Amino acid sequence: MINYPNGSKPKKQTTKVPSKRKNITKSAANRGMALEKLISAANDYYLMHDIALFTKRPTPINVVKIDYAKGAKITNAYFEKQSTTDFNGVYKNRYFDFEAKSTRLKTSFPLNNIYEHQITHLENVIRHGGIAFFIVEFTAFDEYYVLSAADVIDFYRNGDRKSIPYASFKEKGVLVRLGLNPVLDYLPAVIKLFNL
Amino acid sequence: MINYPNGSKPKKQTTKVPSKRKNITKSAANRGMALEKLISAANDYYLMHDIALFTKRPTPINVVKIDYAKGAKITNAYFEKQSTTDFNGVYKNRYFDFEAKSTRLKTSFPLNNIYEHQITHLENVIRHGGIAFFIVEFTAFDEYYVLSAADVIDFYRNGDRKSIPYASFKEKGVLVRLGLNPVLDYLPAVIKLFNL
Repeated sequence: MINYPNGSKPKKQTTKVPSKRKNITKSAANRGMALEKLISAANDYYLMHDIALFTKRPTPINVVKIDYAKGAKITNAYFEKQSTTDFNGVYKNRYFDFEAKSTRLKTSFPLNNIYEHQITHLENVIRHGGIAFFIVEFTAFDEYYVLSAADVIDFYRNGDRKSIPYASFKEKGVLVRLGLNPVLDYLPAVIKLFNL
Repeated sequence: MINYPNGSKPKKQTTKVPSKRKNITKSAANRGMALEKLISAANDYYLMHDIALFTKRPTPINVVKIDYAKGAKITNAYFEKQSTTDFNGVYKNRYFDFEAKSTRLKTSFPLNNIYEHQITHLENVIRHGGIAFFIVEFTAFDEYYVLSAADVIDFYRNGDRKSIPYASFKEKGVLVRLGLNPVLDYLPAVIKLFNL
């Protein structure tokens, strides 16, 4: 799925959905696409209430051609894979780094949409004392789990399986309690998971 | 000056220099443009030697039009102003957030290329316990100073002047000792400035 820089998605593009998603229900697709927005809304809340500062990294774009005659208009460019993660920031002096993923499956979270670069990056974050984790949405259950990057890396590096069982999220992760404002109040789950 | 995402600048564009820079010597222009690269080279060194993890935020780009028939080719987009800062990361658990700027002036560093958004962001970083600073290059002297964001904010918010005197960098900042590898070994200056 293509990620757009914050607020840059023009209205006329909002009906565009990657073709492989066309066969799923609209509500599930919306929910999946909404994860990043739910996190950004929570981040806005945390910032507004002086709780923490988390920001989304802009989507990396490979610029091929610029038309300087038209005020530096980019006329040829491609989306790049994020080599790090979607979000990072600071809570009580500590560095936070995390990635958000969504799955429609009911029994496991597939690891094939996590890139080797991201795993390496998260290993580096952990080595330097950062708080590294994933927020994973199971759209079928409307559930969101915080799972430590260390656990995800363990499955990625040491498992012969290509996914993390749903049961492992219940066992090793912390379920995010959904609220009204913010809806996805994920920080208490992170604090509990890491004993912060 | 337009910033390009890492490694995305095509070869044929490398001779393009903003017109206002054409009247300065080529070496100074190169040096100015090189600051970001010097920092990234230092960051590579710190990562390689397990000292710290600092990454550059991708340049935010406002995507207006995508041609899906050509494999999601972006055909109309514009560079956006960075609403946060260029770099952030982690050193010994602590969150770091910093911006790099270069000036050709000999007597002061002009504040007009720092945006209100960036100042607000750095104020938030400080409030949440992050280490926030600027790396400022005086190309005329081939000198690089680390100055706390708190000091820059003080000049920005409370001064009636539109620049920070060169003397203030000597007084309040720490000069980066240039080396061979990495050339711009800025971290010791940060450690000294913040007593880390």
